[in-house]
Amino acid sequence: MTSRRLSTLISVDDAVALLADVFKRTMELEVVEERVLNALGRIAASDVTAGVDVPPFNRSAVDGYAVYAGDVVNASIYSPVELALKGVVSPSDKPPSECLERGEAVRVHTGSPIPCGADAVVMDEDVEASGSRVTVFKPVSPGQNVSRRGEDFSSGEVIVAKGTLLGPLHVAALSSIGVDKVWVYRRIKVGVLTTGSEVCEPGVDSECPTIVYNSSARLIAALLRSTGFIDVRYYGVFPDDPAVIGDAVVEAVSENDLVVTTGGTGVSEGDVLIDALAGVGRTVFRGVRMRPGRPTTLTLVEGKPVLNLSGYPVAAWTGYEAILMPAFKKWLGLGNLERPVVYARLARRTPNTVGYRSYIRVSLRDAGDMLVAEPYMLRGSGVLSSLLKSQGYIVIPENVEGFEKGDLVRVHLF
Amino acid sequence: MTSRRLSTLISVDDAVALLADVFKRTMELEVVEERVLNALGRIAASDVTAGVDVPPFNRSAVDGYAVYAGDVVNASIYSPVELALKGVVSPSDKPPSECLERGEAVRVHTGSPIPCGADAVVMDEDVEASGSRVTVFKPVSPGQNVSRRGEDFSSGEVIVAKGTLLGPLHVAALSSIGVDKVWVYRRIKVGVLTTGSEVCEPGVDSECPTIVYNSSARLIAALLRSTGFIDVRYYGVFPDDPAVIGDAVVEAVSENDLVVTTGGTGVSEGDVLIDALAGVGRTVFRGVRMRPGRPTTLTLVEGKPVLNLSGYPVAAWTGYEAILMPAFKKWLGLGNLERPVVYARLARRTPNTVGYRSYIRVSLRDAGDMLVAEPYMLRGSGVLSSLLKSQGYIVIPENVEGFEKGDLVRVHLF
Repeated sequence: MTSRRLSTLISVDDAVALLADVFKRTMELEVVEERVLNALGRIAASDVTAGVDVPPFNRSAVDGYAVYAGDVVNASIYSPVELALKGVVSPSDKPPSECLERGEAVRVHTGSPIPCGADAVVMDEDVEASGSRVTVFKPVSPGQNVSRRGEDFSSGEVIVAKGTLLGPLHVAALSSIGVDKVWVYRRIKVGVLTTGSEVCEPGVDSECPTIVYNSSARLIAALLRSTGFIDVRYYGVFPDDPAVIGDAVVEAVSENDLVVTTGGTGVSEGDVLIDALAGVGRTVFRGVRMRPGRPTTLTLVEGKPVLNLSGYPVAAWTGYEAILMPAFKKWLGLGNLERPVVYARLARRTPNTVGYRSYIRVSLRDAGDMLVAEPYMLRGSGVLSSLLKSQGYIVIPENVEGFEKGDLVRVHLF
Repeated sequence: MTSRRLSTLISVDDAVALLADVFKRTMELEVVEERVLNALGRIAASDVTAGVDVPPFNRSAVDGYAVYAGDVVNASIYSPVELALKGVVSPSDKPPSECLERGEAVRVHTGSPIPCGADAVVMDEDVEASGSRVTVFKPVSPGQNVSRRGEDFSSGEVIVAKGTLLGPLHVAALSSIGVDKVWVYRRIKVGVLTTGSEVCEPGVDSECPTIVYNSSARLIAALLRSTGFIDVRYYGVFPDDPAVIGDAVVEAVSENDLVVTTGGTGVSEGDVLIDALAGVGRTVFRGVRMRPGRPTTLTLVEGKPVLNLSGYPVAAWTGYEAILMPAFKKWLGLGNLERPVVYARLARRTPNTVGYRSYIRVSLRDAGDMLVAEPYMLRGSGVLSSLLKSQGYIVIPENVEGFEKGDLVRVHLF
């Protein structure tokens, strides 16, 4: 029964490091080729380098006439400059092989390659064209109205770094350099289940005498699914019977890279999960110095990681946010998984238990020229509504007794 | 040819209102029942109201003994209070029918229903139990360590409002009240295509003599796909031939609720899209007073909306962000589609053309106690890399000449 006790709590940082290390040792994450348009939410498995310049040549940013800027430096309405029209270059033409001579102009459209020699484009509205003559009424400076070759991306530049979580902008950037397929890690397979004889599964249990429904495991399943790089397998609820739980976890472990459980992590007699897992596996850590989510536990079963989160929704969420995601980030070198951080004034004093790292949900109010953060201090790591109503969270470090009213705090946005 | 000209620019707000109105008049958005776990990213089609309280009864938040707080008000190590143990209530038990009498205590675990009469729970560590006697060494106040019935959600409360974009927290909240299926709008079908004889499609065109690859339409397709409530059909690139474009748009319109095009919206001879659409449909508006994205155009083809965005990636993105998404929001009453807003100091003077609403990408730098916003003023609505490197954008209203260096600005985060 001693395994239930939380006698050797470790720090959040140590928990993250241990979990990342277990991921590294236990998971083989093959890379697969995926079409860029279907790679949203996936993780790049290698750097992608541009093989071309974007734009591929100096091109016009407007409709007008490509010129030597030096030819029209003194152009004005009172003393227009006449140039000889030397033809048309359309956006689908290659850059002309012949260079522009002094005193000449070439008709161009938005996107047209600029002939060598030309270094600027006079816009249509500053020109009068007639037959083979172009009359310019306004000067342009060198480079004006020209998109320089390689201005957006240059050949040899890393467009997407290994470890990037691919979003719509990466899809566009890869497409712009002509890339249609990209190497990504295969999706990580995560099994999710919950324990508790009192817990009913919506849609499965037709009656629920306790009126206690599973929300924590479904929250974790939905969070994992929304990342895009995880395949979630959802196993539902298992009663507080060590043999049943042991079998369920062993089965889930055989079908996944990682299993996440919620519930049963407490120290009371009904919480049999930890004993059940001790029977089929080995405990890596048991309890973390964080609030909420203190009983968070990591076990190895059949050589695979089983992360046990609290049965309380907010505590389970904290385990996801403070330990699971940072461990993925550390293991895979994820470059852009961070939540945006904003500064806000704290609306109320918010205490902390020294030695623990606290994750406090806050709602943000726009005070006109700054944000005010209202902390949710309801006892409740069970209080799911506090998560729904908040827009982010603050973290109080282990060595701090709390934040005072009016303190400037960093808010991690949902 | 006059249809090409941008002679009747309308405001961003008018463009959003017109597009939302067209959506309302042309789209029939049926509601479908979806399992909550599969409803991520979908839009709730009706309010969902709790039929139960969460928690369903007063329950213990800790392991310990349920008591009358009044009985132990004077308990201390020096004068402990003895109570009579009246049994055990486990988390899977129903609330006991018998009430607690004064002088009595009941063994409870985290999640156990509290018997009527009891109004607090003394934690294990403040108690010594021996046989039928419980000795309490510390007082508790009424309500202490008890999760009140309905504290999280109460019966009759709207848990998810119509028009909510469903995220992981909504999945959890719905699950906690026992809901497994939810009414959502069917996905909106959007066709995406691009035009431009010079544009190659990565993965389709084996050679690309112009070295100009389609990125704008792929950006829009990826953005739409990542919303979760849109089914994207991607049609690729079509050359600047009015008949070909007309046919492509008519076909796309027949298979979708909305068609979004990129490219060909300019006023030069090569931009034939607008004429092609004028031939098969009717222009609703042609040009918007915003920067970038000025040539954004709305056409009705076969009674369905066709939104024409600029071929420049940043300008196309602005049309998506400033017009298309706000129109969806307005039409469907989407409650939580807003990007988070933060305040930052502007690093540089940022001018605006009065009469236009400008959308300026910014990168954010954490200056220790505040954020500094560095605007990307590169000419380039073609400069996709500026979007990739920025973390959000600022909006300069029509009636403002620009923002000064050091101004406090609202940054909409990506």
